[in-house]
Amino acid sequence: MRSAAVVGTGLMGTSVALALSRQGIQVFLDDADTTAARTAEALGAGSLDAPDGPVDVAVLAVPPAHVGTALKECQERGLARTYTDVASVKERPYQDVLMAGGDPGRYVGGHPLAGAERSGPLAARADLFEGRLWVLTPVEPADRGALNQVLELVALCGGTPVIMDAAAHDRAVALTSHAPHLVSTLMAARLAEADGEHIRVCGQGLRDVTRIAAGEPALWGDILEANAEAVADVLEACAADMERTVAALRALHGADGGPRRRAAADLQETLRRGTRGAARVPRKHGAGPVEFATVPVAVPDQPGALARLFATVSEAGVNIEDVTIEHAVGRPTGLVELVVERSSAEEVRRLIDARGWTARDHAPLVARN
Amino acid sequence: MRSAAVVGTGLMGTSVALALSRQGIQVFLDDADTTAARTAEALGAGSLDAPDGPVDVAVLAVPPAHVGTALKECQERGLARTYTDVASVKERPYQDVLMAGGDPGRYVGGHPLAGAERSGPLAARADLFEGRLWVLTPVEPADRGALNQVLELVALCGGTPVIMDAAAHDRAVALTSHAPHLVSTLMAARLAEADGEHIRVCGQGLRDVTRIAAGEPALWGDILEANAEAVADVLEACAADMERTVAALRALHGADGGPRRRAAADLQETLRRGTRGAARVPRKHGAGPVEFATVPVAVPDQPGALARLFATVSEAGVNIEDVTIEHAVGRPTGLVELVVERSSAEEVRRLIDARGWTARDHAPLVARN
Repeated sequence: MRSAAVVGTGLMGTSVALALSRQGIQVFLDDADTTAARTAEALGAGSLDAPDGPVDVAVLAVPPAHVGTALKECQERGLARTYTDVASVKERPYQDVLMAGGDPGRYVGGHPLAGAERSGPLAARADLFEGRLWVLTPVEPADRGALNQVLELVALCGGTPVIMDAAAHDRAVALTSHAPHLVSTLMAARLAEADGEHIRVCGQGLRDVTRIAAGEPALWGDILEANAEAVADVLEACAADMERTVAALRALHGADGGPRRRAAADLQETLRRGTRGAARVPRKHGAGPVEFATVPVAVPDQPGALARLFATVSEAGVNIEDVTIEHAVGRPTGLVELVVERSSAEEVRRLIDARGWTARDHAPLVARN
Repeated sequence: MRSAAVVGTGLMGTSVALALSRQGIQVFLDDADTTAARTAEALGAGSLDAPDGPVDVAVLAVPPAHVGTALKECQERGLARTYTDVASVKERPYQDVLMAGGDPGRYVGGHPLAGAERSGPLAARADLFEGRLWVLTPVEPADRGALNQVLELVALCGGTPVIMDAAAHDRAVALTSHAPHLVSTLMAARLAEADGEHIRVCGQGLRDVTRIAAGEPALWGDILEANAEAVADVLEACAADMERTVAALRALHGADGGPRRRAAADLQETLRRGTRGAARVPRKHGAGPVEFATVPVAVPDQPGALARLFATVSEAGVNIEDVTIEHAVGRPTGLVELVVERSSAEEVRRLIDARGWTARDHAPLVARN
């Protein structure tokens, strides 16, 4: 790939353009909003000139509802040989492409899983896609050449490509992005008219839960509309769980005996299901569940012994995840089990031996997420 | 204050003990869980010995439901002159104190707004409360001396005290902590049985929304039960909004004409209410809304002029928050308005003048959150 066009110089388009320019690709920028386009140009994202002939790839970084008409229009003026987009829904834009009469043979839908709190070209970053997943949804008539061109674009931006069906993608993002956006919004909406003194009493949890609710309403309206059915399915199930939780809380407040015990059990089950779900969220791309190992150590039962053990381990830069202490009655030592990351366990054992502690060699592995 | 006792050496208790020990206070630790107590001791949080006489303040860092009985028990053995707790609800523990026959005259309820993802003494930090709010809920019989002793404790831990009614506190945390915990839990619960390939397609938003859902179910069950009615009120309103949102999404998918337009308008209104609510969440303790200033600059309409302007401003370490560009038709210059933090505006104007750009002196202030 030698040349690219970016149509739409908002956050996503300008970030793609910056990433490609940094890799030496000649990038042409196009946006009806001349402030955005000139800002992107001033940031070094590319040129506002029109290309002399078709570029290798054009990235349609326009709202989901405009992808179909933008593709048709760009193909008519021969802007590029291959086209992709960055819309966060994929089924509807593809239908729009067909409806608008664009050529689906040179179009591969795309959705980079990256974003920022602010929108517009000033929030753009060349490394926005570094290490992020980038879903591609090629549909049958799209040829292999077009797919490979877009795979190269993703690689140049530092993303990790994932090929999916458009419909599966849309159900996935309904669950992992669109419904969470609405859940965050609905919680934040409760604060819109609340007492300021009450809101002051807030911790990091509220900040985290409501952060994405600050997203641009117009943009999110488009996204949600384009994936309305799949989002409604997730949110409806969530609302039903919420009603049950309200009922359990009311029973915990007002009921006694059996109904109260059942309400407490219901609430526990919901909380546990939540921890199971939260544990499945990938905390870092590519990072699987961290494996832990238990390192048992015999520790003399005397003041400061445990403190010296902790100091020894933390000097090595190893985090102690958990600890259990057992005392054998009438014995001068206790058995301490340190839970550490598996990759550090060997080092901890060596260190402990070197300091004259007795590390046992039995070390069962525990997988935690 | 010279001495303190910490009853319960979990995350909160051990963090208080570490903070006080660092300030030279003699700290006595007490926990029925000897592993937790010995771990806290090994971390340098204090001593496991029993104090010779009453300490100045005892901190009851036990689950909310145990505060009442713990106070009674500690007062009977004369552990301290003044007592406080760290439970995240305040009305119920106070009622429990009265019910258990404890002396409320030397007890001041407390709730430090701090926490961590992990629980237990190993997650404790001496600076956990640094710069955090710490609500105190003194009730009439509590004497001034007790309140001042607890205020000193908060100051020693680096917290910012806030005095509130217990009932107002409980309504506040229902809104800002307990309902958000359940909202996060209910979203995370949707992931518990979802397709792993779908969950892989997740961005930072889902991580943020579901982070607190990883909290310990048993602990949260206690907290929610102790504040069940106030939490149910918030969650019920949230569930009603959610049902309406589901209906709007269904109409956006299936309806046409007027019903569809009304659904789109409903969804926009919800999204906008969410952004208003999110904007009210204090992003940092004490940080008010940031004020922005607009710096208008006349820029020659020639290639690279805008890029040089951006470079000039960013060399000064100033972030451009927004930009507008106006072109006067037939004129060789355009007017660019840079929006920057008010505190940087003067510097930007000086810099621009120094480089020979024309900064206008008109600079309306814009307040944003």
